[in-house]
Amino acid sequence: MTNTTHSAPWDDVGSAGVVPARIVTFTDVPLASGRALPSVEVAYETLGTLSPQRDNAILLCHALSGDAHVAGWRESEALAAGWTPEAGTDWSPTDSATGDPDAAPAAAMRPGWWDPFVGPGKAFDTDRYFVICANVLGGCSGTTGPSSIDPSTGAAYGLDFPIVTVEDMVDIHVALLDELGIDRLLAVAGGSMGGMQALSLAKRYPQRVSACLAIATTWRLAAQAIAFNEVGRRAILGDPQFAGGRYYETGTVPRHGLAVARMIGHITYLSDESMHDKFGRRLRDRDDFAFGFETEFEVESYLAYQGKRFTERFDANTYLYMTKAMDYFDLAGEAATLEDALADAFTENPVRFLVLSFSSDWLFPTHESREVVDALRAADADVSFAEVQSPYGHDAFLLEPEAQHSFIVPFLAHTLTERRGGEQA
Amino acid sequence: MTNTTHSAPWDDVGSAGVVPARIVTFTDVPLASGRALPSVEVAYETLGTLSPQRDNAILLCHALSGDAHVAGWRESEALAAGWTPEAGTDWSPTDSATGDPDAAPAAAMRPGWWDPFVGPGKAFDTDRYFVICANVLGGCSGTTGPSSIDPSTGAAYGLDFPIVTVEDMVDIHVALLDELGIDRLLAVAGGSMGGMQALSLAKRYPQRVSACLAIATTWRLAAQAIAFNEVGRRAILGDPQFAGGRYYETGTVPRHGLAVARMIGHITYLSDESMHDKFGRRLRDRDDFAFGFETEFEVESYLAYQGKRFTERFDANTYLYMTKAMDYFDLAGEAATLEDALADAFTENPVRFLVLSFSSDWLFPTHESREVVDALRAADADVSFAEVQSPYGHDAFLLEPEAQHSFIVPFLAHTLTERRGGEQA
Repeated sequence: MTNTTHSAPWDDVGSAGVVPARIVTFTDVPLASGRALPSVEVAYETLGTLSPQRDNAILLCHALSGDAHVAGWRESEALAAGWTPEAGTDWSPTDSATGDPDAAPAAAMRPGWWDPFVGPGKAFDTDRYFVICANVLGGCSGTTGPSSIDPSTGAAYGLDFPIVTVEDMVDIHVALLDELGIDRLLAVAGGSMGGMQALSLAKRYPQRVSACLAIATTWRLAAQAIAFNEVGRRAILGDPQFAGGRYYETGTVPRHGLAVARMIGHITYLSDESMHDKFGRRLRDRDDFAFGFETEFEVESYLAYQGKRFTERFDANTYLYMTKAMDYFDLAGEAATLEDALADAFTENPVRFLVLSFSSDWLFPTHESREVVDALRAADADVSFAEVQSPYGHDAFLLEPEAQHSFIVPFLAHTLTERRGGEQA
Repeated sequence: MTNTTHSAPWDDVGSAGVVPARIVTFTDVPLASGRALPSVEVAYETLGTLSPQRDNAILLCHALSGDAHVAGWRESEALAAGWTPEAGTDWSPTDSATGDPDAAPAAAMRPGWWDPFVGPGKAFDTDRYFVICANVLGGCSGTTGPSSIDPSTGAAYGLDFPIVTVEDMVDIHVALLDELGIDRLLAVAGGSMGGMQALSLAKRYPQRVSACLAIATTWRLAAQAIAFNEVGRRAILGDPQFAGGRYYETGTVPRHGLAVARMIGHITYLSDESMHDKFGRRLRDRDDFAFGFETEFEVESYLAYQGKRFTERFDANTYLYMTKAMDYFDLAGEAATLEDALADAFTENPVRFLVLSFSSDWLFPTHESREVVDALRAADADVSFAEVQSPYGHDAFLLEPEAQHSFIVPFLAHTLTERRGGEQA
């Protein structure tokens, strides 16, 4: 459906449309730390239709700052914009209160974090696949995390929230699959921390998944990546507004520390080359140096904006918990080597892998993906690997839909065909 | 003089010995910003002996956190340790108050920041050369900077101190040379921000120098390097203890912000490889994860220590001014390209160049040094260039004395020989 008379967002070819938010609750959730959570709400969204055979489900796992809203438009934002659903799940801007689609504040509606990848005809084709995305445990976008209320105190957990691991996130994902009646995913996929979840799920629950797409990720953080995370955490923990993590009660937010942490992170998501191309040494709105400490280079202005915007939507405690989960992640676990850890993981339940890295990603560089590929191949797993040439650094997993499309589409199609006994679906 | 019975520091072969600190004052100093300083004290030290022809002087320029104490032992620390000079400038531990050299608190005496490079028999051989090093303008180790008293108010300048540029630093260095009666240096040398000063002096005062050694440096910061500096500045500026730069009056120090800034900087000084080799994913003093936000990885502990130690010796305002000077530095100046800027710079006064980069330096990567080399060669300058293979990242300029020795020694010897009319000195 294409309409050239106005720019209501769902007229874009391939939008997943309006997606409702859903919640499921689990009780007595054990964690890797040895602690447990009495109750965990999981916020998730689904797109597309589960096949009668229940064999076309794909779990998409989000990265540090993501959420369950992977693609399309949030139902809550569409409702706030005055739009109403037609019969079923079809929405139309002509149903808006004013009847004038141009009056719709489309700009206030943000598409999901992987919108160019997920929707009708896109890499994760919602006409073919049933796509699930859940906010991770410890998150701040609907799933229980440090900003949630601790039932034992009636106040937000703050730093009393237990440290969660990538494995804990995956365990809750699997509980969600149980809830949805999905015995075996067609695929689990994710970039960055989402890729860690995908790898962890495939290794620990190979009976629950046919294929794993690990994108712009690693099997364990190197010292430099831990170092960047730690500096970000120190910036937050040392902000007086952080108040030991109890800032929910004071009504303040450790904006300064969180913004600094985000700025550090943001530098690691870009490449030297892309920053040079995007900003160079250009000054913003001036011709000469200010000879002061105001923001004057364009790159400074960009980072300040990113830092500020982040503090308006993200919880500082969750930032601490997410970075810690990444630091702890080690796909090798207790094994001496990654090869040892994966040696027998897929013998009984083969899982196919697609590993994608990006040439300019220096946060999780290609050689770390190669280590994963080598270990998987040593375990006789079926692995496809590509290093995508891109100037966009780590962020390329969000910014290069076309390059990834060409790898993801045939990989998923082949997996579904194999699963359906070798016949084309 | 080698003495194996105890470990008094100057018994190390090749130590420059005890070096007195000196001060010279200049008045009415104009700056690139258009502002001026009524009075500037410059702290400097000299090592070795100026030749009768005054042709063996080498100016060493320090980096962001350096000072005038480039090598040997501080006179002030030696005196504090109870040691006294013999006749002339020779000091001996047997002159100490107790007469017991082992009682000397040698551990409290830190050698200069480039000690492995400067001293008798070292790359900058103080038996052959007269070495000068001055704390830069805007610094916090004796030369006038933001922590100095503003004579117009009687209080520390703080952020009222004018922004200084690398060119301003160089102009003061040249004024110091005038004061010392040195018309023409044998060489100017420095690493990182020191290399910027060396390049700037050679370009702007080619009549004052025969050779320039630019090590682990660049002709202008790329966007990524500006970004890291800016995040560090934001960490300091947003620390409530910073108090708008007037923390001298409150008796507090913006420790948190300065430590975060230093931690960020430190990551950029190391390489991914060297951090991996040095720390890997090892935990400090524990076998298992803490499942909390305390410092637990060794790399975290290292950074925390570096950050804390830095706050004990360095002024937060000076950190702001030094990073800004680096961000502003652009050897191309107003010219369209670096080639244009250097085209006629050395026609009348040829300067020889030695440019050294390090293979794992990602802050000022080799390709930036190559750009300098290409522009110098286009200007028909005599340029030697080497990329030193080293795992130590940007810090290699401080950590690889042997590899640099082999380039520096013949370069300086050849320059002196040429200067003395082709006869071996």
